[in-house]
Amino acid sequence: METLKQKIIEEGKVLSNTVLKVDSFLNHQMDPVLMKQIGEEFANRFRDMGVTKVLTVESSGIGPALLTALEMGVPMIFARKRKSLTLTEDLITSTVRSFTKQETNEVTISSDFIKEGDNVLIIDDFLAVGQAAMGLIDIVQKAGANPVGVGIVIEKSFQDGHQIVADTGIKLESLAKIASLEDGKVQFVNEGNHQS
Amino acid sequence: METLKQKIIEEGKVLSNTVLKVDSFLNHQMDPVLMKQIGEEFANRFRDMGVTKVLTVESSGIGPALLTALEMGVPMIFARKRKSLTLTEDLITSTVRSFTKQETNEVTISSDFIKEGDNVLIIDDFLAVGQAAMGLIDIVQKAGANPVGVGIVIEKSFQDGHQIVADTGIKLESLAKIASLEDGKVQFVNEGNHQS
Repeated sequence: METLKQKIIEEGKVLSNTVLKVDSFLNHQMDPVLMKQIGEEFANRFRDMGVTKVLTVESSGIGPALLTALEMGVPMIFARKRKSLTLTEDLITSTVRSFTKQETNEVTISSDFIKEGDNVLIIDDFLAVGQAAMGLIDIVQKAGANPVGVGIVIEKSFQDGHQIVADTGIKLESLAKIASLEDGKVQFVNEGNHQS
Repeated sequence: METLKQKIIEEGKVLSNTVLKVDSFLNHQMDPVLMKQIGEEFANRFRDMGVTKVLTVESSGIGPALLTALEMGVPMIFARKRKSLTLTEDLITSTVRSFTKQETNEVTISSDFIKEGDNVLIIDDFLAVGQAAMGLIDIVQKAGANPVGVGIVIEKSFQDGHQIVADTGIKLESLAKIASLEDGKVQFVNEGNHQS
């Protein structure tokens, strides 16, 4: 997705060989027009999968997931990282380790909103070591539903997450694939013109 | 906003005299079409305020705030409840006590995204005791910017928040105002037809 790659080049800050900061348009400040384009792009890529729900995890996934859900005409659910007082019903939980934040969270949804028969599209802002995506896949499967796709805004293709998710056989689409952050420079995976 | 009130009546669950659960369309599952209507409504109500940024706090505020920002053609910023490893620059912080979760958080933004001269519209999902809204107003003022409005999806008008925010003189607009949750029933503030 060319607009997104351009934005990463212009505004992304490489903090180390593994950490890319995109706080000006995705993780802290959000560019609503770009989020809408991202939603349209995910909707196109997963159009024929019979998606009935979009699932993400708070907080940075909510923007892309919501605009994907709007475009697809289905509800969006965001998994919680902590239990809330008003989440009183049956919970489905998985454990997720965050690569960036170096901490382990319980990720939780209410069983009210994802049911057997649902075709769930999982959306997240980053794919690094794959823990968040695998946690969400686990939740969908525990709910008896079908994880039909994983849509990622920015994939760090030099880390293990891509392979781990691909090995599940679930369709994986990443809008920007980063081959390397070495020497403070963003290099994208060369996908040829047909997929850029 | 009639659509929102209808949704609250149909799907809201009154957990106590002070707690209303709207997890099926706002706080856990999100209804994207309703979020879009909410964004349009806030954009209309604050159209003439010269808004340059929309500010909310993670996580439930992100949906309404993002779609308001999209409609107004300005960026959205979500304040963080914890410090993240990739937020390395100058931070502006305020302390917020959550009524629902009974806990105190540091709420933080990067000083990169709200500057002197910005006219900031604050959006949040609930107004109860007013702590979150006041924390966000505090952050905007610490940044040297101008808080021009506070837009709330659901106001619990029987708690202190409305008065506390109104006393600042900042324009406050709440899309659904709840007069009472007593006896397990949602009663709205009677605003007459012209404001419903």
